[in-house]
Amino acid sequence: MAQLTLDDLNRMDARAFVAALGDVFEHSPWVSETAHGAAPFQSLEALYRAMTEAVRRAPAERQRTLIAAHPDLAGKAARAGAITDDSKAEQASAGLDRLSEEEFARFHALNDAYRKKFALPFIVCVRRHGKDSILRQFERRLAHDEPAERDAAMTEILRIAALRLDQRVAAPDRLKVAGALTTHVLDTQRGGPAAGVAIELVEVAASGATRPIKRTVTNADGRTNGPLIAGGPVPIAEYELRFAVGAYFAGLGVPLADPPFLNVVPLRFSVAEPESHYHVPLLVTPWSYSTYRGS
Amino acid sequence: MAQLTLDDLNRMDARAFVAALGDVFEHSPWVSETAHGAAPFQSLEALYRAMTEAVRRAPAERQRTLIAAHPDLAGKAARAGAITDDSKAEQASAGLDRLSEEEFARFHALNDAYRKKFALPFIVCVRRHGKDSILRQFERRLAHDEPAERDAAMTEILRIAALRLDQRVAAPDRLKVAGALTTHVLDTQRGGPAAGVAIELVEVAASGATRPIKRTVTNADGRTNGPLIAGGPVPIAEYELRFAVGAYFAGLGVPLADPPFLNVVPLRFSVAEPESHYHVPLLVTPWSYSTYRGS
Amino acid sequence: MAQLTLDDLNRMDARAFVAALGDVFEHSPWVSETAHGAAPFQSLEALYRAMTEAVRRAPAERQRTLIAAHPDLAGKAARAGAITDDSKAEQASAGLDRLSEEEFARFHALNDAYRKKFALPFIVCVRRHGKDSILRQFERRLAHDEPAERDAAMTEILRIAALRLDQRVAAPDRLKVAGALTTHVLDTQRGGPAAGVAIELVEVAASGATRPIKRTVTNADGRTNGPLIAGGPVPIAEYELRFAVGAYFAGLGVPLADPPFLNVVPLRFSVAEPESHYHVPLLVTPWSYSTYRGS
Amino acid sequence: MAQLTLDDLNRMDARAFVAALGDVFEHSPWVSETAHGAAPFQSLEALYRAMTEAVRRAPAERQRTLIAAHPDLAGKAARAGAITDDSKAEQASAGLDRLSEEEFARFHALNDAYRKKFALPFIVCVRRHGKDSILRQFERRLAHDEPAERDAAMTEILRIAALRLDQRVAAPDRLKVAGALTTHVLDTQRGGPAAGVAIELVEVAASGATRPIKRTVTNADGRTNGPLIAGGPVPIAEYELRFAVGAYFAGLGVPLADPPFLNVVPLRFSVAEPESHYHVPLLVTPWSYSTYRGS
Repeated sequence: MAQLTLDDLNRMDARAFVAALGDVFEHSPWVSETAHGAAPFQSLEALYRAMTEAVRRAPAERQRTLIAAHPDLAGKAARAGAITDDSKAEQASAGLDRLSEEEFARFHALNDAYRKKFALPFIVCVRRHGKDSILRQFERRLAHDEPAERDAAMTEILRIAALRLDQRVAAPDRLKVAGALTTHVLDTQRGGPAAGVAIELVEVAASGATRPIKRTVTNADGRTNGPLIAGGPVPIAEYELRFAVGAYFAGLGVPLADPPFLNVVPLRFSVAEPESHYHVPLLVTPWSYSTYRGS
Repeated sequence: MAQLTLDDLNRMDARAFVAALGDVFEHSPWVSETAHGAAPFQSLEALYRAMTEAVRRAPAERQRTLIAAHPDLAGKAARAGAITDDSKAEQASAGLDRLSEEEFARFHALNDAYRKKFALPFIVCVRRHGKDSILRQFERRLAHDEPAERDAAMTEILRIAALRLDQRVAAPDRLKVAGALTTHVLDTQRGGPAAGVAIELVEVAASGATRPIKRTVTNADGRTNGPLIAGGPVPIAEYELRFAVGAYFAGLGVPLADPPFLNVVPLRFSVAEPESHYHVPLLVTPWSYSTYRGS
Repeated sequence: MAQLTLDDLNRMDARAFVAALGDVFEHSPWVSETAHGAAPFQSLEALYRAMTEAVRRAPAERQRTLIAAHPDLAGKAARAGAITDDSKAEQASAGLDRLSEEEFARFHALNDAYRKKFALPFIVCVRRHGKDSILRQFERRLAHDEPAERDAAMTEILRIAALRLDQRVAAPDRLKVAGALTTHVLDTQRGGPAAGVAIELVEVAASGATRPIKRTVTNADGRTNGPLIAGGPVPIAEYELRFAVGAYFAGLGVPLADPPFLNVVPLRFSVAEPESHYHVPLLVTPWSYSTYRGS
Repeated sequence: MAQLTLDDLNRMDARAFVAALGDVFEHSPWVSETAHGAAPFQSLEALYRAMTEAVRRAPAERQRTLIAAHPDLAGKAARAGAITDDSKAEQASAGLDRLSEEEFARFHALNDAYRKKFALPFIVCVRRHGKDSILRQFERRLAHDEPAERDAAMTEILRIAALRLDQRVAAPDRLKVAGALTTHVLDTQRGGPAAGVAIELVEVAASGATRPIKRTVTNADGRTNGPLIAGGPVPIAEYELRFAVGAYFAGLGVPLADPPFLNVVPLRFSVAEPESHYHVPLLVTPWSYSTYRGS
């Protein structure tokens, strides 16, 4: 879908505006309709605030309908493809479209338990989570009482909308929906950036299974050309960065043990704040290394 | 088998001596018989030297027979249990008794190629190697010419004998056959040893498969009660030490991210010198860590 | 003075016992006399406990006399040499025998203020402190009320006695009066201990002035032959360890910048617990280093 | 002096051009005069190249006169103020205008020895050096033979000119005359930048004397607002960065030892390449720290 500009939107009448943004809130064009009353918007932030207000001021029953309009996570409708394109892409981002039978059964059971307790679908902004984190969220929120869970669901709906809006509309300002994961490699044996180090980033599931996310190589500055993850939330998950330092030092002609003491160095860490910047560098010699959450 | 003392051996006549040590060299009691001529021995080292001399001074044909007396690695005889107890235990130490069909086929092909080229069995002191390292050795040595390979085989036979002898005989001195792997954990947030950190040591195969070696917990000094590996060679292999630092810091009541930035820290390294001491410590805060080959 | 053994002491009658240990408490042989009632002693610890009890159970007036029996710190009597040999050696250990006129004046003023407030001399176990720390103690304790300061003075008297006793008597057990300062240097460029690194330890005064304590060189293990400080308390003070790593790497033929990025590496730290072990290592390459309080 | 632009220069006739740039080479307007033949200049680099060519192609005698036109370093003329303003400022930058009598005598002796050997003044681009480094250069170059020293002097003259030109002329490109010294502080106990850490940068003389260069405080990113040194060469010298980490952690309410293990952390290092970027960060907890030459 081509991006709209804020100016485009500000020039639209209510009908066109709702046609353009009606699906930012799942099956709930009334949010855009209400928000349009506050047009024109000085910024994307102002537009988002207007939508937020529309939701917050809606009567409880309407809010409940908004929640109910969402599909189950990894539910039968999703499996059958009978959900909105946005929902489809979002669920796929966390791998919910390729669950094992066992995982599908677990989601199914959680969905059932949740519907039984709250008579509503479970909503979470899946782009902010890896699969394990979604399951942890699911279990924690099942323990909520109704008012706490209503708040939690509304928070997630607003996060989903913010992401959809930020993606849909080109504006001078951005909503605070993106974090970043970056690294760099410093060769402390030579006292300079390590260039040409192959790097692999994988997501690590609680089961130990890994899912490749990115392969790249450090440039002359010991950095990667562009962040490892950027442009959206960094999903809450455990990651492993793997640095091929054995090949790097061998390539420089540094005498190494056989096999080298360090070959592929794994740095394993978790992201807890999807909208933050995680810088996870490697300082390395053939016999030592260190890492830290940097800035 | 109960350990003999050096004094016991020095009191023995030739027949008893050969009965006691004849199998230190595979199916070759003549080595012990010859060595007995140099009795009594001041030290285990002296006894080992006498055996070494006996082998080195033997005619080429006898040396060839000694080499030929060894069983194939992971060969059919081994599979059928038709090899000496020492060989059986040694091959088991490197996991050669539980190969997949694919691995068995690979060993089979290498054994064939080796026998075809050298008309002898391939010999390596398996206690000094993990499975991957044995395969690397195998391939490298297949490229040898005959004299180089004869030397390589003799070196390995003497290493096997040294290990068997060191295990068999109690003496004030020891042969230089043992290395060690140790670790300790330092909590650099609190400036002291980290006690109660669960540690797991695994061997990592080239395929990525891991084999558990040891589970332990740090004591009040941040060290383990006893080395992780000791008493013999540290097999040439890749290892991963895993430290449960998330649980450690949580147990201390340190406020952590959710999930914690560091949960299980993996340190991955290779051993190249089986008779050396590898000290691989972890210096850690909830947000950083470092390691190095220490002393 | 030749060391006595615990057995020697246990065989003595009261008179000989008091002759031997009467001066463990300054000008107060009655403490030893009372303690002798509990002889024989199973351990040095038991002997010290008996002395401690004698002091603690003494009437308030006698305790006050004990406090009053001590000389001023860096006072006129000390300057004139008119104090016990023990006191003389103790005051010298902290450099109180070579104060500048200005420092002498500061001690004089503090002594006066203290005597004016408490009508007693200020007592501190000087072997546990550098000069700056003594001055900080002095100022803090001047702020005490009488009961708090009486307790503080008694604590110091017992510390002085423990040190004198531990030095005087040879016994299988030791009193907990000694800490240690140690270091080691690890060359993380080569992955092993750094041998032959010249090390200098200095004490750093608040004024910035430094006082040399020890010069040494690392051995093959990257350690020093013996601790840098041991056998007694490590005085509360700021220290600087200086490692000549530029000369070390140059000696190995490592190519270095001109001048080298790192030449003499200073590690500056303070000791707060004189009876603890401070291990302050250096991990170093020509372009990086790290240190930590180790164990 | 107000900066000229490259356009200004390109519009000038020869006379104005020489008036503007004649003193870029000490008392030698002929260099600018010759270079003007190549006008207009596409870049500052092109202008500098034209000047370089003018010098390189000049007859040997003229080159010699150019060398001879420079004043002695820290010589009598400099002391009396009888040198060009540029020379005065340059010599002051390295502290040559405030030498002790002893230092002055040393420079005097070196100048004499140099004039005696080469019949020329000793020339060095002093902005690239601290005082100790100038003396080391002086002694090394005294050992040269004439052709080597002629080359060395010409190199220095061109460096001086490059610096003067880069300062004098505003152009889209810059000459490669500037390096930088930067730092940042990372609190690895909290896993983020350390804000509000007081930092002092001093130059350390071989004698141990220190000269303050800059005081600053880290900002919210743990960095300083602007580099510690920038805009010109980073003089070849030994430096010490001092970080008030004790006050920083105390300010955060982190429980510390008394006195804190780390109070002011000194990082001591030397710069060897004045036109390079030296990034010297501090990673610190209350009980550990590390540094490295970063990028």
